[in-house]
Amino acid sequence: MRAIVFNGKLEFLTDYPRPERKTGEALVKVTRAGICNTDLEITRGYMGFRGIPGHEFVGIVEKCDSKNIIGKRVVGEINIGCKTCSYCRNHVQNHCPNRSVLGIMNKDGAFADYLTLPVSNLHIVPDSVSDDEAVFTEPLASAFEIMEQVDITPRDRVCVLGDGKLGLLVAQALSTADCRLVIVGHHRENLSIMDELGIKTRLSSSFEESGFDIVVDCTGSRSGMESAMKITKPGGKIVLKTTVARKSSLDLNHIVINELSLIGSRCGPFKPAIDAIKSRSVDLYPLISDTFSIHDGLRAFQAASRKGVLKVILNID
Amino acid sequence: MRAIVFNGKLEFLTDYPRPERKTGEALVKVTRAGICNTDLEITRGYMGFRGIPGHEFVGIVEKCDSKNIIGKRVVGEINIGCKTCSYCRNHVQNHCPNRSVLGIMNKDGAFADYLTLPVSNLHIVPDSVSDDEAVFTEPLASAFEIMEQVDITPRDRVCVLGDGKLGLLVAQALSTADCRLVIVGHHRENLSIMDELGIKTRLSSSFEESGFDIVVDCTGSRSGMESAMKITKPGGKIVLKTTVARKSSLDLNHIVINELSLIGSRCGPFKPAIDAIKSRSVDLYPLISDTFSIHDGLRAFQAASRKGVLKVILNID
Repeated sequence: MRAIVFNGKLEFLTDYPRPERKTGEALVKVTRAGICNTDLEITRGYMGFRGIPGHEFVGIVEKCDSKNIIGKRVVGEINIGCKTCSYCRNHVQNHCPNRSVLGIMNKDGAFADYLTLPVSNLHIVPDSVSDDEAVFTEPLASAFEIMEQVDITPRDRVCVLGDGKLGLLVAQALSTADCRLVIVGHHRENLSIMDELGIKTRLSSSFEESGFDIVVDCTGSRSGMESAMKITKPGGKIVLKTTVARKSSLDLNHIVINELSLIGSRCGPFKPAIDAIKSRSVDLYPLISDTFSIHDGLRAFQAASRKGVLKVILNID
Repeated sequence: MRAIVFNGKLEFLTDYPRPERKTGEALVKVTRAGICNTDLEITRGYMGFRGIPGHEFVGIVEKCDSKNIIGKRVVGEINIGCKTCSYCRNHVQNHCPNRSVLGIMNKDGAFADYLTLPVSNLHIVPDSVSDDEAVFTEPLASAFEIMEQVDITPRDRVCVLGDGKLGLLVAQALSTADCRLVIVGHHRENLSIMDELGIKTRLSSSFEESGFDIVVDCTGSRSGMESAMKITKPGGKIVLKTTVARKSSLDLNHIVINELSLIGSRCGPFKPAIDAIKSRSVDLYPLISDTFSIHDGLRAFQAASRKGVLKVILNID
């Protein structure tokens, strides 16, 4: 099959072996896959991953023991637990210490004609949702994870730092909650997408507000956390959404004295994400910067790594 | 009056002016004061404080507009808010941006014959509680703050890292909650105090457990946070209690991937602390390493800064 493969360098191959379906797994023909910053990080050595990257996808179930989902259009949760540890038994396979993660850890991913995933990881895509929308389900679910972790009330002042693709998704997810929301960034074009959706925006260069109840750092930069610490009010919460920043020097005294909470946030629930897409509570089309055929996968990666570029989609029809 | 004063160096003075009582304040004759690690940090430049340190005390109200508390034995909350900002109006003067803090910020403290505090900061000490016990109210309240910030259930595995005076207080406070508690440290003598109170202990050198739901870092060391990150389970909470560690290098990826919460924790509620002392749910006497007269205040500071030493109390009768 065709596949984008990372083995120290990124290659497009046409003769990569089709993945073998294990017990309980479905074989999925991928139709669209999205390039995420984590994929870009993988090509820089993140997680030491080797194989096919890609974890944002939509596709059609081609083979499966459960006959009723063959031929269905699906998206899929990316963590595959061992099913026996205490995390898996408590339905938090996202934190299974023995997990594999689609396209990130010990499991070939979505930048290929085919992938396999346990049937229990799959969610059927409603007919009214397009492939181009459905491919956003995984990152949008990650944005909805914030609401699983932090109570948000109408009185809360909430600030999203960063107007890259993750920041724009997070802001849209948060806009479905009733709160006083602003997104801050330095890409005028990206912010204007939020303006059109009625989400309040501010340019970083002229942003001087502080005292936020909740700040979500989607900058992926070392300075993001510092800014977040400055603008979060005492007793407030900072949600960390990006895994890009490596070790960072943090003023722990500031965290203690102001009783801040720093909350790491990763993968999230698919259901509210699919519901939000279906109900048009979010608008994902403006977040698509470009679409490439899988043949042009390497060019797609180059495009995705340019500053200010939003979602780049691989078409794997 | 007699006072221990820090003006770049620590001095014992006998002619320091008695503090002037402002509107709403009580003049308190201090009888006992405890030396906290923050006081030791102040002598190393922390907060740039100048004046009389000391914020753990018990004393007798000598002057006050509210006649009914004159002559009463009191302890006092240490944050003095501006009374007009949004924090003060919402009864969280601990985070008032214009606050002063007894013996820590813009307000002379307790290592002296007299101090002043707003009457609203004072709590009357029950007759059955001794001065030596009452002087622990402030740091014990800080330990109880953890329960204000984090829900603790009987199933939770909770680990206190550090067996200094703060760690032992935190462990005792947490032992009043129903949970699976262990305190880890490297002072056999200090841990044996916990053993006698029926609190499970482990020596750091042989400690290999992990997967804790809640870890409270009371080590005051740079390595404390690293250990805490290692032994907290995914989705778990790390409470930071010490302001000693300066800027620390933290692996934010670990926080995101494991969805950890880092929660800064400072001053706490006096009522549960006083209740716990009164009901003998905690035993504070074993935590007293030594008592010095205020005349020997400088020796008291030296004693308090020795490794493994627990609470050193100043007798200011």
